[in-house]
Amino acid sequence: MNLAMIHNTGPETVVAGVTTGNRFPGAPVIITRERLATAGFRSIIVNNKIANVAIPGGIEEALRVTSAAAEAFGLADEEVVPSSTGIIGWSLPTDEMVREVATLPEKRCSPREFAEAIMTTDRYPKLAVRDLGGARLLGVAKGAGMIEPNMATMLSFLITDARIEKNVLQRVLGRVVDRTFNRISVDGDESTSDTVLIIANGASGVEVDESLLEGALLELCGELALEIVRNGEGTAHVIEVAVAGVSSEQSADRIARAVVNSPLVKTAINGNDPNLGRIIAAIGSELSAIPQDRRPQTADLTIAIDGKPVYAAGAFRLDAEIEERLAARLLELQIDPTVEGYPQESDSVRIEIDFGNEAAAEPVTVIGSDLSHQYIVENAEYRT
Amino acid sequence: MNLAMIHNTGPETVVAGVTTGNRFPGAPVIITRERLATAGFRSIIVNNKIANVAIPGGIEEALRVTSAAAEAFGLADEEVVPSSTGIIGWSLPTDEMVREVATLPEKRCSPREFAEAIMTTDRYPKLAVRDLGGARLLGVAKGAGMIEPNMATMLSFLITDARIEKNVLQRVLGRVVDRTFNRISVDGDESTSDTVLIIANGASGVEVDESLLEGALLELCGELALEIVRNGEGTAHVIEVAVAGVSSEQSADRIARAVVNSPLVKTAINGNDPNLGRIIAAIGSELSAIPQDRRPQTADLTIAIDGKPVYAAGAFRLDAEIEERLAARLLELQIDPTVEGYPQESDSVRIEIDFGNEAAAEPVTVIGSDLSHQYIVENAEYRT
Repeated sequence: MNLAMIHNTGPETVVAGVTTGNRFPGAPVIITRERLATAGFRSIIVNNKIANVAIPGGIEEALRVTSAAAEAFGLADEEVVPSSTGIIGWSLPTDEMVREVATLPEKRCSPREFAEAIMTTDRYPKLAVRDLGGARLLGVAKGAGMIEPNMATMLSFLITDARIEKNVLQRVLGRVVDRTFNRISVDGDESTSDTVLIIANGASGVEVDESLLEGALLELCGELALEIVRNGEGTAHVIEVAVAGVSSEQSADRIARAVVNSPLVKTAINGNDPNLGRIIAAIGSELSAIPQDRRPQTADLTIAIDGKPVYAAGAFRLDAEIEERLAARLLELQIDPTVEGYPQESDSVRIEIDFGNEAAAEPVTVIGSDLSHQYIVENAEYRT
Repeated sequence: MNLAMIHNTGPETVVAGVTTGNRFPGAPVIITRERLATAGFRSIIVNNKIANVAIPGGIEEALRVTSAAAEAFGLADEEVVPSSTGIIGWSLPTDEMVREVATLPEKRCSPREFAEAIMTTDRYPKLAVRDLGGARLLGVAKGAGMIEPNMATMLSFLITDARIEKNVLQRVLGRVVDRTFNRISVDGDESTSDTVLIIANGASGVEVDESLLEGALLELCGELALEIVRNGEGTAHVIEVAVAGVSSEQSADRIARAVVNSPLVKTAINGNDPNLGRIIAAIGSELSAIPQDRRPQTADLTIAIDGKPVYAAGAFRLDAEIEERLAARLLELQIDPTVEGYPQESDSVRIEIDFGNEAAAEPVTVIGSDLSHQYIVENAEYRT
């Protein structure tokens, strides 16, 4: 297990956060929510390997760790929040953690070392930076498996030396998370531990307005979210499904998720097989579950893969040549999961689904991954 | 490709059917629905390999095949319905099929040979028989992958020589399908071709009442549904998830499906790892998607695996010994997918989730399978 800490030594400590929608939140999530709702916090202590969820006395154990960290750094108890990911149903080795925490004030690490310390099954550390009108914005994330609607088993910590009002920070973070971390999906499950926290400490003296902040956060969180998928357990293709021409954004979102989470679509793409019938099957299956008043009509539906139209006017427009070209393109887009370190640069497999309703809501894009042998290996043998 | 036909030579032809809820039904489903709604039919012609979905002119091609079959057997055109499964987006080889159909009247096959002829990726033929108060009831099914809520890519054909009223037959079939074929799930997708048809020809002269019919059909369809899962693509464990103590049957059904379809639960069980945290994560994730007025409370939730309590009063009740025993039991319950022919007899991995509401609706049990390497192999390479 690694312990890592973000300790804010700046003049201010303005914080905001978004946590999991899972109905069994871990003890660290419960504590973080409480402290977000009251005075805020100054520092975050993070461990990997054990998530501290559904354990008798789990909250007390987490509080022993945060109190030890507060004591070591000369803070009040409630100025530290815990953050944990890993196995659910196991207890923290609290005594060892408390001893280790006492040694942290003498240590320093770079953002990259921090990003490495919080990894679980991640293949590489994820961090990104953006300029904020002269101030700086830095983000790190961990993710890999269990990434779905509401940021399952992913943690992201964002820090900036800008001066930002607390209510602006919370409002912007909520909107950005909805459009970035909440629009990725590796396996359709939503975890008990997912958390995004941001700390603004004002050290630069630069005041940042809402729109500048939102633009920079969208870019940075979008980059981290894409990296989480590219780095997902056994990801060999990143799949982007865009759904347009639907009057309800919620329905567009459901359809995009149904396609990107379909095991049959995912395995076909993994095998570089443009088995387009499975996309239609996934769309048609999800449509039947959408209430009639929000269900888009299919008469004008068109589908394009990698920019090439393949379905229109109720039927596929395919021949052997088009299928061969698509298969070759899928092979080109394949990430070799055996390469160590950062994966190669690669484009996504792009599936565009347009229901042709011109009065539609904004298009919705959900990013996911294919389903490979490596995924099974990692998940069947995760605890051994 | 195989062609196979059920031709009813009995005195009556009382029929009923249930077809897919997918919004892109195949051409054979569209034709079958029309004929079910009007005069009924006498015979069914079935092909595997190509599903005839989303093809320009797909309906006309299917009608050429049924007309050829009608001519060969001296029937009116509308007395034959088509049934197809296989790849979506490819066209039927209609000319060859029409030539082949002309040779069918000289051939005879056993129910088992018929069950073999309609297989796609199935590992073994599935058939079952029941007594119906002196008359007989025979059912065959094909399934394997893409089995979800509404019988995705599964076909089942049921025949009986009993005398049954048409409206009784349709009513009972609908109820039975909801509680058998619609409660299995191999991969969460719902197909464009799934169909259950029953023909009663009255040849035995035995009149059968509603409750006798329902009991026998429930048993027979339950047996076929379980066989479809045991024979699913790469199934190494059959998983039964029972959800009780929930006031809404619909909510119980959603929770059971969320657990049985969770890739993380499925891979853990595949690896014989009783990683129970993933069950909690899947339940908690689904609960957050259920509207508050139908969402069960979690305070009294208990979970048992294979009859052993593992979760109560908000926390897991586990130790190393319990985990080792569960792991050993999962290994015992494993089906060896490399064994040819009928798989060994085996029990299911049974997960019992009880929310403790005594005024609850009936418990719901959904049957699914684990997620194995073999699943990926079959689905990534399905068309090669």
